[in-house]
Amino acid sequence: MAAAARLAARARPISSPNPGVGALLVRDGGMIARGWTQAGGRPHAEAALFAASEESASGATLYVTLEPCAHESARGPACADVIAEARPSRVVIGQKDPDPRTSGKGIARLKRAGIETVLLEDAASAASLAGYLSVRLAGRPHVTLKLAMSLDGCIALADGTSQWITGEAARAHVHAQRARNDAILVGGGTWRADRPRLDVRLPGLEDRSPRRLLLTRGVAPEGVTVINRPDQIAELDGVQYLYTEGGAETAASFLREDLVDELHIYRAPILIGDGLRGLGGLELAELAAAHGRWTLTERRQLGSDEFTAYLRTR
Amino acid sequence: MAAAARLAARARPISSPNPGVGALLVRDGGMIARGWTQAGGRPHAEAALFAASEESASGATLYVTLEPCAHESARGPACADVIAEARPSRVVIGQKDPDPRTSGKGIARLKRAGIETVLLEDAASAASLAGYLSVRLAGRPHVTLKLAMSLDGCIALADGTSQWITGEAARAHVHAQRARNDAILVGGGTWRADRPRLDVRLPGLEDRSPRRLLLTRGVAPEGVTVINRPDQIAELDGVQYLYTEGGAETAASFLREDLVDELHIYRAPILIGDGLRGLGGLELAELAAAHGRWTLTERRQLGSDEFTAYLRTR
Ligand SMILES: NC(=O)c1ccc[n+]([C@@H]2O[C@H](COP(=O)([O-])OP(=O)(O)OC[C@H]3O[C@@H](n4cnc5c(N)ncnc54)[C@H](OP(=O)(O)O)[C@@H]3O)[C@@H](O)[C@H]2O)c1
Ligand SMILES: NC(=O)c1ccc[n+]([C@@H]2O[C@H](COP(=O)([O-])OP(=O)(O)OC[C@H]3O[C@@H](n4cnc5c(N)ncnc54)[C@H](OP(=O)(O)O)[C@@H]3O)[C@@H](O)[C@H]2O)c1
Repeated sequence: MAAAARLAARARPISSPNPGVGALLVRDGGMIARGWTQAGGRPHAEAALFAASEESASGATLYVTLEPCAHESARGPACADVIAEARPSRVVIGQKDPDPRTSGKGIARLKRAGIETVLLEDAASAASLAGYLSVRLAGRPHVTLKLAMSLDGCIALADGTSQWITGEAARAHVHAQRARNDAILVGGGTWRADRPRLDVRLPGLEDRSPRRLLLTRGVAPEGVTVINRPDQIAELDGVQYLYTEGGAETAASFLREDLVDELHIYRAPILIGDGLRGLGGLELAELAAAHGRWTLTERRQLGSDEFTAYLRTR
Repeated sequence: MAAAARLAARARPISSPNPGVGALLVRDGGMIARGWTQAGGRPHAEAALFAASEESASGATLYVTLEPCAHESARGPACADVIAEARPSRVVIGQKDPDPRTSGKGIARLKRAGIETVLLEDAASAASLAGYLSVRLAGRPHVTLKLAMSLDGCIALADGTSQWITGEAARAHVHAQRARNDAILVGGGTWRADRPRLDVRLPGLEDRSPRRLLLTRGVAPEGVTVINRPDQIAELDGVQYLYTEGGAETAASFLREDLVDELHIYRAPILIGDGLRGLGGLELAELAAAHGRWTLTERRQLGSDEFTAYLRTR
C-alpha cells in the first residue's frame, strides 16, 4: 500500500480537481501492473492500470489508495465496474472515499461482484490524499507553510536582507514543492517588498507553476487572486494543495486560525541574532498550548541546510 | 584510534587540569589492554593501561590519542619511558602534544628506544582533547554554547515563561553535558531572573557538578566566580571546558568575540512566534559573514526534541 501511495504522489497536483490515486496489481509477491490518476483527473488510477496491463488480473490482488469510484461520468465508466470486470481475487483499499457519490458504494459494488474487498485505514494513503481529504472533510485546501530560517529563527537581517539564508539545494527543493501545489500564497508585505515571481524555475517543470494568491486587505494586482482573510481559502475553486511562503504576519494569521496542516522548515547552519523573525505573534496563553501540535514526518539534509517537515497532529 | 578517543571521553572533565587521554593496546586485531587518564590527571592513560595489563606488549601496537609525555613528575615517571620499557612494536599517536615539555620529545624518546612511532593528525583525538588543546593553543577554555529553543527560535514566551520548552530527555542531556564541563556560565540577567542551580541532577553524577561562573559588570554572589568580560575566561585556572547556558545577551557577547567553539541546540517541535529570543544582536554586516562558520557534528532525537551539535569551523 505504501508503494501505491508513492505512485499516487506522481498525480500531485496534476490530477486536480480529482484526487491523486495510486493503484498496484500484485500476484505472488510480484507486480503485474500499476497506475495513477492522469493529468486533469482522468483516466482514474484503476482505469490507467488496466489499460496498461496485458495480463489477466485473475488470482491477483489490487491495491488502491482510495475507494474505487461508483459513479459513471461522461469521461469514463465507474472504476468499481472496471475492476469487477477485470476480476482480481482481492481488492485492498487504503481509504474510504468521502465523496457521497462513492462513499461505501464502491466497496459494496465490488463485494456484490463477489470480489474479496478489504478497507484499511492506511496512513500513507491518507497522506497522499491529504489535499482531497481536506477539501472534502474540512472544506478547505491542505495548507503547507514554508519557513526558511537561520538556527536562531531569523528569516533575514534586521535591514531585510534575506539573500541568501539557505543554499541552492534548499531553494531547488522549494521550487519542487511549488510544483506539487495548486496555488502559492504570500502576504501583502512580502508582495510589496519582494515582488516574488512564485513560479517553478526547475528544468522541465516550468509549466507546473501554480496559481498565485495574495493575502491582503487591499485590491488584486494583475494575474493574482486575492483573499482578504485566511479563512477565504475555503472558497478557492479547484485548489487541493496550498503552499504559503510567508511573510511573518501571514504565517502567524494562518497559524492562529489553525489553518496550517504541514510545516516545512529549511534551516541554514548560521546565526543571525537580531534579524527579522519568521513568525508574528501567535497569542499563546501558555507554553503547554504550543506542545503536541506538530509531528515530525521527514528530515533530510539539503547541502548544508536541514529540511524538516511536520504534520499538524489532529 | 576512534576507539581510543572514545576511551578518552571517560576522562572528561575529571582528568583536569591534565588532558583526558585514551590508550589502547592491540595485537592481531584484538584488544589486549586499555587505559584512560584517571581523576585528577594521574595516572596517565598509558600508565593506567600498563598497570592493568598482565600480558606482554611485545608484538602489539599502542594507540594513544596524545603524544606520550616526556617529563617526569613527583606523581609518576614519563609515559615515553613507561612505554619504552613495555616495548610494544609500534606506537600510533593521535595528536602531538603542544606542551613544550613534551612536544616532539615524547616521539623522539620512543624512536630512540627503537620503537616504530607514527604521528597522525587524527580528528577524533583532537575532538576528545578540545579543552586541553584550546587552553594550550588559544589560551582559553573550549566554550560550548547551549540554546534550548522552539522551531522558530524562541527561548520563552513574551512574558518570560520558559518552563518547559524542551522535554525531560533533553533536560537530562543538558545535565549530562554539565557533568562533562569544568565550569558553567550564565549572564547576570539569567542569574537574577532564574537563580539557576547550575548543578548536575542525575543519579550518580551529583558530585560532578561543575564550578559556577557569572558574567556581570556587578559583584560576585556567594559561591560564584565572576568575570566582567567574556575574554576573561582566559584567566580561569584549571578550566578546560566551559559550558554557557545563556541568556541571550551573554550568548551574543561570546559569539561577537568569536569565543564559542561548539553550539548545542535543543529544539522542541513547537511554535511560539512572539516570544523571547535566544540570541541578542550579532552585528553582522552581511549575510555572507554568517555562513561557513558552523559544521554539524551530531544530531540525535531526545524524546520529541531534536539535539544538534555544531563545531566552529576554524
Ligand atoms: N526568508 C524568507 O523565507 C521570507 C519569506 C517571506 C517573506 N520574507 C520577508 O518578510 C517580510 C514581509 O513580512 P511581513 O510579516 O511584513 O508581511 P507579510 O506577512 O508578507 O504581509 C503582511 C500583510 O499581509 C496581509 N495580511 C496578513 N494577515 C492578514 C489577515 N489576517 N487578513 C488580511 N490580510 C492579512 C496584509 O496585507 P495588506 O497590507 O496588503 O493589507 C498585511 O499587511 C519581507 O521583508 C519579506 O522579504 C522572507
Ligand atoms: N530557555 C532557555 O534556555 C534560557 C536559558 C537562559 C536564559 N533564559 C532566559 O533569558 C533571560 C535572560 O536573558 P538576558 O539576555 O536578559 O540576560 P543574560 O544574558 O543572562 O544576562 C545579561 C547580563 O549579563 C551580563 N553581560 C552580558 N554581556 C556582557 C558583557 N559583554 N560584559 C559584561 N557583562 C555582560 C550583564 O550583567 P549585569 O547586568 O549583571 O552587569 C548583562 O546585563 C531570562 O528571562 C532567562 O530566564 C532562558
